[in-house]
Amino acid sequence: MNKPERMDTATEDAMLELGRRARAAAHLLSLASPEAKNNALIAAAEALRAATPEILAANVKDIEAARAAGRPESFIDRLLLHEKRINAMADGVAEIAKLADPIGTVLAEWQRPNGLRFQRVRVPLGVIGIIYESRPNVTADAGALALKAGNAAILRGGSESIHSSRVIHAALVAGLKAAGLPEAAISLVPTPDRAAVGMMLTGLNGTVDVIVPRGGKSLVERVQNEARVPVFAHLEGLCHTYVDRNADLAMAVDIVLNAKMRRTGVCGATETLLVDSSAPAAFMPTLVKALLDAGCEVRGDTATQQADARVKPAADADWSTEYLDAIISAREVDGIDGALAHIARYSTQHTDAIVTNDADTAARFQREVDSAIVVHNASTQFADGGEFGFGGEIGIATGKMHARGPVGVEQLTSFKYVVMGNGQTRPS
Amino acid sequence: MNKPERMDTATEDAMLELGRRARAAAHLLSLASPEAKNNALIAAAEALRAATPEILAANVKDIEAARAAGRPESFIDRLLLHEKRINAMADGVAEIAKLADPIGTVLAEWQRPNGLRFQRVRVPLGVIGIIYESRPNVTADAGALALKAGNAAILRGGSESIHSSRVIHAALVAGLKAAGLPEAAISLVPTPDRAAVGMMLTGLNGTVDVIVPRGGKSLVERVQNEARVPVFAHLEGLCHTYVDRNADLAMAVDIVLNAKMRRTGVCGATETLLVDSSAPAAFMPTLVKALLDAGCEVRGDTATQQADARVKPAADADWSTEYLDAIISAREVDGIDGALAHIARYSTQHTDAIVTNDADTAARFQREVDSAIVVHNASTQFADGGEFGFGGEIGIATGKMHARGPVGVEQLTSFKYVVMGNGQTRPS
Repeated sequence: MNKPERMDTATEDAMLELGRRARAAAHLLSLASPEAKNNALIAAAEALRAATPEILAANVKDIEAARAAGRPESFIDRLLLHEKRINAMADGVAEIAKLADPIGTVLAEWQRPNGLRFQRVRVPLGVIGIIYESRPNVTADAGALALKAGNAAILRGGSESIHSSRVIHAALVAGLKAAGLPEAAISLVPTPDRAAVGMMLTGLNGTVDVIVPRGGKSLVERVQNEARVPVFAHLEGLCHTYVDRNADLAMAVDIVLNAKMRRTGVCGATETLLVDSSAPAAFMPTLVKALLDAGCEVRGDTATQQADARVKPAADADWSTEYLDAIISAREVDGIDGALAHIARYSTQHTDAIVTNDADTAARFQREVDSAIVVHNASTQFADGGEFGFGGEIGIATGKMHARGPVGVEQLTSFKYVVMGNGQTRPS
Repeated sequence: MNKPERMDTATEDAMLELGRRARAAAHLLSLASPEAKNNALIAAAEALRAATPEILAANVKDIEAARAAGRPESFIDRLLLHEKRINAMADGVAEIAKLADPIGTVLAEWQRPNGLRFQRVRVPLGVIGIIYESRPNVTADAGALALKAGNAAILRGGSESIHSSRVIHAALVAGLKAAGLPEAAISLVPTPDRAAVGMMLTGLNGTVDVIVPRGGKSLVERVQNEARVPVFAHLEGLCHTYVDRNADLAMAVDIVLNAKMRRTGVCGATETLLVDSSAPAAFMPTLVKALLDAGCEVRGDTATQQADARVKPAADADWSTEYLDAIISAREVDGIDGALAHIARYSTQHTDAIVTNDADTAARFQREVDSAIVVHNASTQFADGGEFGFGGEIGIATGKMHARGPVGVEQLTSFKYVVMGNGQTRPS
């Protein structure tokens, strides 16, 4: 087992105490009524709105520090809060209160010939450790979703957003207190100490049930190396959009522009454009021109370079680079087979899209692409729990275990089997 | 990262090649028709029956080695195959062919106001690594279930059952060949080298999607320490049966006897008997006498010792010991509250049962006990995928992620989201 970085005993004790309190809170939450949880969420949303000036002031500190550290604009965009985003965050928390309570739902029910009756019943997961980086709104989204699903959350936000996160967390705690729920139901790790992350990854002495990492490559690598508790795998989003010979070109241009440029810093942004080599000659130049004219750098293969003089040559590394910026890699592929082969090799199994009016080709693409989300004739930027109708998300899981795709309330639950008999014993 | 034990380069290369071939086979299997998979299973069942003499001969070798090594009878029982068990194994494989094919099932379907249509579609998990110990029938169960769910399986059986497992595996491969499916769809690790397990736990170079450990404490501990891929947590089954004051005593005796003594070596066997201190005076002596008369050693608290002179005193360690033998720990508890407290402290969250005719008490027990399977008025030995109607199981998962309880065909699948649009782009 890797040793976590050294930390002083006081901080270590504080982390273990955080875990113990979260575990005790999780037990109470697992038995809490839907009303209590919803009251906490509604009160938290109100507290968030009321705290707008404090949140903005705290966010200014975070933004100034990020600018001083020379962070790129896409990073600043993820960090930035303004009134509209704070309102959206509060709306998000209030919306979660309106969702159906998942706990206690009977997912399946059946009887066996021996008279035993079985129910599969939804229960909370327990204590969820969420490790994230720059987006301060994750504090509210993650805390609220975990609460709705009857879980305790231990949030460890990035040091870059710590001022914003603290004020947001205080509003959530105000909501919990107003509803008579334990404050430890949503904890924010108080220290920016990286060793605290190490402790979370080893489970805080058995108190953490699952880790949800939300961040870039270095965080994900650390989690993969150090985690001793289950993890919602959350790799980068190296998303592809494939434009087939049977696509509507105007639709393809709209979709590709949106998929790349709507917000370049999100994990559902398309990073690679694949164009069918048998598509009409106008396809590649039209798509590439639209991207270039919108301010996107294009790095392409020979065919792409021939389509527009502004295209730069793509290096091998480009096909496996998540830019999170106004840059796209582009190449011709040999139809659906070529697209499937390229995606199988380079996709991070997050979200991949096809644009085509051929139903068979679309069906094959959606069947064979082994990604969490496979889109036909729409933008990859719909990869988002809110857009799925999940009422928010903690992130997009790229693993295949438990949660896959947007991690919303239902994905934060487990189940148990309730078996009802009248004296049955098992024959040998 | 822990280094796996040293192994020679040839073995290491062979293991990596096994992983590559399994990954390639998994891709083909994910697209295989239900008919092809079922044909393979039916042919494998026939091959198993036809190989009965060879399986018995191989099993004799394993049994002799186990006896020479002084293994206990409960171990021999797990290892032992006879004609009836081989038939049951073949029946099990053939039954799995009859189950509905899970792959491609639309689990949920909905539309959003913007016209986007969503489907959640069941897909295979990929490559499943199964690490088990003495039961040779796991080779057939696990291989067949993985195949039905469209997965490739890498099986690493215990060295104690290696002769039996090899012959069983050959029958499965004969089934795959007969159906035109890749032989690498079900691989048996050829070496008894413990380092092979270490390689599987680190994912065989990214080719293993999930590990299913099936074995005792030392295996589980090793898996928890070394695994770098997701694991279906599979702890020991420290199962409890609580006899409430409102139980029917005759029913309680039947259930407790069956729960402990039907087969003592299975993970669903009850290891601790809890008796309500407010139950009628006859309860404890009657239950204890029935156990003792059936040849079960009883280790109890003072109240239990007073019930029968043959009861031995229980030490602290008894409450956390999975005997897997004809031994039970027993104590009085202060009603449902005492039972819940004892179970919360000592249960491994596998299977726990209550015997009572009070519906409210039963409902509270089933709500508050945080175990995979919570049983009312029936034996804990029903903790088995076959008894649940799952058509076989790889094991009982005690974690809360993905699979919980019996791991059958459906638990060996994942899902993906298929999103269908007509040109939708996401507003900013």
